[in-house]
Amino acid sequence: MLVVMHSHASPEQIERVVAAIRQMNLAPHPMPGATRTAIGITGNLSAVDPNSLEVLPGVLELIRVTKPYKLASREMHAADTYVKSPQTVIGPKTFTIIAGPCSVENEEMILRTAEFLRENGVRLLRAGAFKPRSSPYSFQGMGQEGLDILARVRERTGVGVVTELMDTDNADAVEQAADIIQIGTRNMQNFSLLKRVSLAAKPVLLKRGLAATLEEWLMAAEYVMAGGNYNVVLCERGVRTFSDHSRNTLDLSVIPPVKQLSHLPILVDPSHGTGKRDYVPAMARAALAAGADGLLIEIHPNPDRAMSDGAQSLDFLAFKDLLVSLRRLAEPLGREIN
Amino acid sequence: MLVVMHSHASPEQIERVVAAIRQMNLAPHPMPGATRTAIGITGNLSAVDPNSLEVLPGVLELIRVTKPYKLASREMHAADTYVKSPQTVIGPKTFTIIAGPCSVENEEMILRTAEFLRENGVRLLRAGAFKPRSSPYSFQGMGQEGLDILARVRERTGVGVVTELMDTDNADAVEQAADIIQIGTRNMQNFSLLKRVSLAAKPVLLKRGLAATLEEWLMAAEYVMAGGNYNVVLCERGVRTFSDHSRNTLDLSVIPPVKQLSHLPILVDPSHGTGKRDYVPAMARAALAAGADGLLIEIHPNPDRAMSDGAQSLDFLAFKDLLVSLRRLAEPLGREIN
Amino acid sequence: MLVVMHSHASPEQIERVVAAIRQMNLAPHPMPGATRTAIGITGNLSAVDPNSLEVLPGVLELIRVTKPYKLASREMHAADTYVKSPQTVIGPKTFTIIAGPCSVENEEMILRTAEFLRENGVRLLRAGAFKPRSSPYSFQGMGQEGLDILARVRERTGVGVVTELMDTDNADAVEQAADIIQIGTRNMQNFSLLKRVSLAAKPVLLKRGLAATLEEWLMAAEYVMAGGNYNVVLCERGVRTFSDHSRNTLDLSVIPPVKQLSHLPILVDPSHGTGKRDYVPAMARAALAAGADGLLIEIHPNPDRAMSDGAQSLDFLAFKDLLVSLRRLAEPLGREIN
Amino acid sequence: MLVVMHSHASPEQIERVVAAIRQMNLAPHPMPGATRTAIGITGNLSAVDPNSLEVLPGVLELIRVTKPYKLASREMHAADTYVKSPQTVIGPKTFTIIAGPCSVENEEMILRTAEFLRENGVRLLRAGAFKPRSSPYSFQGMGQEGLDILARVRERTGVGVVTELMDTDNADAVEQAADIIQIGTRNMQNFSLLKRVSLAAKPVLLKRGLAATLEEWLMAAEYVMAGGNYNVVLCERGVRTFSDHSRNTLDLSVIPPVKQLSHLPILVDPSHGTGKRDYVPAMARAALAAGADGLLIEIHPNPDRAMSDGAQSLDFLAFKDLLVSLRRLAEPLGREIN
Repeated sequence: MLVVMHSHASPEQIERVVAAIRQMNLAPHPMPGATRTAIGITGNLSAVDPNSLEVLPGVLELIRVTKPYKLASREMHAADTYVKSPQTVIGPKTFTIIAGPCSVENEEMILRTAEFLRENGVRLLRAGAFKPRSSPYSFQGMGQEGLDILARVRERTGVGVVTELMDTDNADAVEQAADIIQIGTRNMQNFSLLKRVSLAAKPVLLKRGLAATLEEWLMAAEYVMAGGNYNVVLCERGVRTFSDHSRNTLDLSVIPPVKQLSHLPILVDPSHGTGKRDYVPAMARAALAAGADGLLIEIHPNPDRAMSDGAQSLDFLAFKDLLVSLRRLAEPLGREIN
Repeated sequence: MLVVMHSHASPEQIERVVAAIRQMNLAPHPMPGATRTAIGITGNLSAVDPNSLEVLPGVLELIRVTKPYKLASREMHAADTYVKSPQTVIGPKTFTIIAGPCSVENEEMILRTAEFLRENGVRLLRAGAFKPRSSPYSFQGMGQEGLDILARVRERTGVGVVTELMDTDNADAVEQAADIIQIGTRNMQNFSLLKRVSLAAKPVLLKRGLAATLEEWLMAAEYVMAGGNYNVVLCERGVRTFSDHSRNTLDLSVIPPVKQLSHLPILVDPSHGTGKRDYVPAMARAALAAGADGLLIEIHPNPDRAMSDGAQSLDFLAFKDLLVSLRRLAEPLGREIN
Repeated sequence: MLVVMHSHASPEQIERVVAAIRQMNLAPHPMPGATRTAIGITGNLSAVDPNSLEVLPGVLELIRVTKPYKLASREMHAADTYVKSPQTVIGPKTFTIIAGPCSVENEEMILRTAEFLRENGVRLLRAGAFKPRSSPYSFQGMGQEGLDILARVRERTGVGVVTELMDTDNADAVEQAADIIQIGTRNMQNFSLLKRVSLAAKPVLLKRGLAATLEEWLMAAEYVMAGGNYNVVLCERGVRTFSDHSRNTLDLSVIPPVKQLSHLPILVDPSHGTGKRDYVPAMARAALAAGADGLLIEIHPNPDRAMSDGAQSLDFLAFKDLLVSLRRLAEPLGREIN
Repeated sequence: MLVVMHSHASPEQIERVVAAIRQMNLAPHPMPGATRTAIGITGNLSAVDPNSLEVLPGVLELIRVTKPYKLASREMHAADTYVKSPQTVIGPKTFTIIAGPCSVENEEMILRTAEFLRENGVRLLRAGAFKPRSSPYSFQGMGQEGLDILARVRERTGVGVVTELMDTDNADAVEQAADIIQIGTRNMQNFSLLKRVSLAAKPVLLKRGLAATLEEWLMAAEYVMAGGNYNVVLCERGVRTFSDHSRNTLDLSVIPPVKQLSHLPILVDPSHGTGKRDYVPAMARAALAAGADGLLIEIHPNPDRAMSDGAQSLDFLAFKDLLVSLRRLAEPLGREIN
């Protein structure tokens, strides 16, 4: 933490800031310069709210230096984390495909999709039983019945299940049905929900919030890890900007900093990221080349009849083509599609 | 809904879109133009997902026309809504001040604040018992004990209580303690929570999400109203943009469109909106002049010692000065401060 | 400037950074902390590019402390600047209205507008002879003929002229015709143009760029001032964000920080800021209440027939109503409309 | 164009809109629906400003349908454009690398860089003689002397030159020195400059503005093409968003829509896009995988001593490593590095 004083701050004002820092049981380091004085602060900053320093007379600005996340940070944990489900491992050596429809519509389509995935070497199915919809009048998902369908299909096909948890009320049911529990974009800072899944025995797929900074995202992961669940997989799915050529702005450039600042694996969701199936294959390949550890991707046996998000879903044929091109790219990048 | 075809779309492609629209039990209205054909759609669009039309061959774009909110819309309900609490009424003729500390820290400071408010004609106190914090290591609020403090202080002073509900688990307790239930920014699209408060007997103060469009915000209000709770107060509190001169970008320009598109009252929170107490009074006055129906504002008996958000809290003296200037402005604007 | 080292940076890495700072003729101030070391830097930072420090081994981050603007900064020049034209003064005690059509369409409408302004106590007319249009096929302004019209109308009515300069080729002509030279949003960082108007004998109205930070905006003002033209008036006109309820997001919250960091006057353009005439009066009043020093506002004798930007222009009647309400608000705010 | 009426618009209001459309010599197509009427418009919309319809009584919204760009659009010109310089061709079959320092610092470093590029099969050098800098106190480039250096080095090495033009005053000199004229981000809507280069005999590399939509970008290309210069290469270089983990947000997701809507080639600048050399290689590879036609990339013989943008420049060794990995990726993507 650094307190920057105004250029015309008086010695008394500087002294008052120094004293305030000492009162917080922190150590002040005054640093007089040509035009102004800055005061470094060291000590245990997490116990106090040093923002109050910002409004002392003569203070120009307060600059935070230490990153607030610890368990999620590579500084604290240098080795890459590999997150395991019964079906596969997500991490730097592989490139994990998680595919499936936006929502569970009926058992037949889930079974057909799971079998198709298995035939094509994909081990994880995504599908929502509980759907966050911006309109109360839209289809809200099949709920518990959807979870039952997912459980039966997993048993029959061996394909693992990734499904979204929207509230603590359904946490037990989703935890039981899922191999990986998804926390959606709109819930990235639903702290009660994060605390609940921090107690879960299953890995958590944590989607980035629509307007979340990297730091806020890693802090959300920190919530899950602070409760004891270290199996967190990040998922970039597009952020909200002024850009209107796609549904969201898929921020692939977050991947290198995530890899630098954190040891957690990161997936990319090009379906929500672009919102248009024509753009999905190119962005899926770009995600692989950018260093992501896998994809979350929407496919549907008949996208034009999907009950939600059909416009961004690939049909099975287009998905097979994409898999072929990903396998070809993975090799020179030193990864294996799984 | 309007389907815009490519300029070189074939008659067969146009016919296929027309047929697809009919299959959805909607009425197509083809509109041939000089360079391309557009096809208007009328009928009950809420039952289907016409996005699938977007990916038919020859289709350039799909343009939605009807707004998806109904109960929140002024088209459906022309008269302004006045939201009542036992202490006051929020709506176009008044300008309602809701003030208090970010969080309940202890009974003494809440009591002191409530008495100060009462002396100054302010009838609603804001203070959080449950605090959404971006770090798991930050003070998370006093919880039930905080609610108890708020209840006792309300009884003693008559000042009404506005406090945040973060999860369905605490919904009964917050509903009992609060005169107005606040839904925070990060929960604006926590649909399970919205459905829960749609059943509450108390009004809901719905803060705008960090990156929420006006339509998404009104759709969140629609969730609350669709469940039967028509007493929704909107609250603008700054959105996230590239601008770095303040904590968020307070979007006062949302007020005129809110008033045009909806009948619901709207407050402004200049404390979170700016993040810096120096900027709060000017933006509070601007909110009044822009047509807002009131303020949600952070004050603290001793801001520099606040356990959270001290840097954006006014002390009592600064708040009194602000009240004076607001009263002077209110008169030419035809409003009464309450 | 502050260099923050990684928590596991070695003493050798720290020493190398210290040495690199000395090589730049700057003074390093190492500050060992509990988890990491930070190194403060003082000295004349403008002569070097210390960004190269950021990539030395062991460096986590580089944090700039001193603001890069000097002439535009209140630290260097505490007293408010009042910018004078032959007709009026722009600064903190008054609230200056500059009104007129988007573009000069013909002499009759300019004359009519100027006479209307004079009758209503408004002393400055805005109108573009050169128009920046996003399409090459749109009306590009009347050019020199438009400037001639403005000059004749000024002579006849005594109303001052504010008009845009788009390129250095027309600088002499615009400088001669204008009382205040406007630099448009898209040219805020057209540094060749800024250097040209830094030599002009007329004040410069500098609109904020669509995505300009406050610092970049003040640096653009610095370009003008560094060349010797201290008469700079800032103008907020909306920035680009995800928000789609208005054409741009009018950032009134920039006003208090501008007033804190700079001594320059600031106007607000609610016409471009909102893009819709219905929203203009409320935002004009909000600008006054927020502490702006005036308005740049589009009016047109017949907005529905305007050659550009008609949808955001007020007609004369609506503008008169607005003036009345602004006069009523100005008094309690201690300003005089001029 | 579509005019959407309010649900309670009267028949008279609808009739007035229909009449207004006819007055503009356009054809109205009323489309009565269950809850409201919409009115389609066909005809030559470029000659009028139909925005004035938006403010007629009873009108809810105006929706534009036709794209405003023509020459830049794939609808008008289905075949991919290949842009040729004496050294190479930029277009869909190849992946063109343009590399070099941010600015010309002296002849020795330009020569060294050009020779290094030639040895590594790179045919185009980028380097600025005129530098747009946000501070008037920063190094502004060597100017004409820099152009002379570039011309001599081109003659000696055969490597082509890409260099920025900042103003019309230097247009002749830059046009003569450059093989490709670069228009920078801050000048994307400097329409006087665009008109000037529309007359140039050299191709134009048009960088995307910091907050430009895809439509505005293609309209800027349209300016160049409307003047007769069809050799336009687009270049994505990061846009401005709330994201703070990199200098800008590199928007790779713009590539598929550019390819769909336009026939022009598109490059990516990962150096400005990320602002940090550590992130450049991953994003360069991602650009290739996303379908870009090449890279504009900053390299420097000694990045830590660069006079500008050193922190985002690769040294020669890192660049060679990147080239190797790009060559490996290009093959499965059906492209050849040139």
